[in-house]
Amino acid sequence: MTRVALALVHHPVLDRDGAVVTTAITNLDLHDMARSARTYGVGELFVVHPIEAQRLLASRIQEHWVEGSGKRRIPDRAVAMEVLCVVPALDDVYSALGGRDAIEVWTTAAAARAPGVTTYAEARARLEKSERPVLILFGTGWGLSGPLVASADVCIEPIRARGDTGYNHLSVRAACAITLDRLLG
Amino acid sequence: MTRVALALVHHPVLDRDGAVVTTAITNLDLHDMARSARTYGVGELFVVHPIEAQRLLASRIQEHWVEGSGKRRIPDRAVAMEVLCVVPALDDVYSALGGRDAIEVWTTAAAARAPGVTTYAEARARLEKSERPVLILFGTGWGLSGPLVASADVCIEPIRARGDTGYNHLSVRAACAITLDRLLG
Repeated sequence: MTRVALALVHHPVLDRDGAVVTTAITNLDLHDMARSARTYGVGELFVVHPIEAQRLLASRIQEHWVEGSGKRRIPDRAVAMEVLCVVPALDDVYSALGGRDAIEVWTTAAAARAPGVTTYAEARARLEKSERPVLILFGTGWGLSGPLVASADVCIEPIRARGDTGYNHLSVRAACAITLDRLLG
Repeated sequence: MTRVALALVHHPVLDRDGAVVTTAITNLDLHDMARSARTYGVGELFVVHPIEAQRLLASRIQEHWVEGSGKRRIPDRAVAMEVLCVVPALDDVYSALGGRDAIEVWTTAAAARAPGVTTYAEARARLEKSERPVLILFGTGWGLSGPLVASADVCIEPIRARGDTGYNHLSVRAACAITLDRLLG
């Protein structure tokens, strides 16, 4: 089975006007995405944030649940929060996985701006036979910056319902859960 | 297409010791589940809470996004939060949908305790041909009370990964997103 890792990216991401910004850590992103990762057998969720105080916040949340009183209250949560790995930049994620050239970087929610969009069915088939670890990037805010999307090896299609509902604004927590289910469910 | 509605139930649900309790409203439950509902074309998300102060909280959150300054800042969120309908009890949900006998009530994450568990594939097929509206219940805390699960018309199997990961503790936000994707994606 191909090794899969996730990265929750807080920079470089877009705001609603399309400007590149850094977003704040959201507590429930860490909980929900760690629980979803663990449910689907993903061993690493990298939390990428360039600001030290924000990384410290994420690390303290993790410690509370993995070693602190949170673990005594809800032991299952410790098993999930262990998958978190807090780092300053995507380069640190690449290094941890063996280097940018040793892995495949995938993005999700690719809009028409991406030249070659991969369907979920194609991505699932590719995942089954990939010999390199696959890193799936999830952008906070209004999504990953354009250059970051363009640098990915695979851009997966946006998540849509069977019928056309005219609405596609899932939370990153929901998008991550659905993506893992479609690829590994 | 069959009419589908969701209910986020705060009572009667279980705590981690199996006792029946009432849980607190979680802000991001409302946002995430409303956004997921809207993405999959579900027009109603009932928020069921027996305590008036908690219902007031949910209604104020909704107003902020549907009519207040939240709408001006993120208009897309208003479209999602419109699906919320805050009520005291499940009986109010049944009445709003035409009465308990006029609908099918489905539950999710059914464990071995339920006698007849329905797979997602069966549930999807059933949904396509159901002539009655389908109400899907989501429990907060450690899940819906036993009698409530037993009274449902359909108990859908737990969400699992393809491989056995030995872990199945998704957030209700993630479970709702995956369920909608499996039934309507």
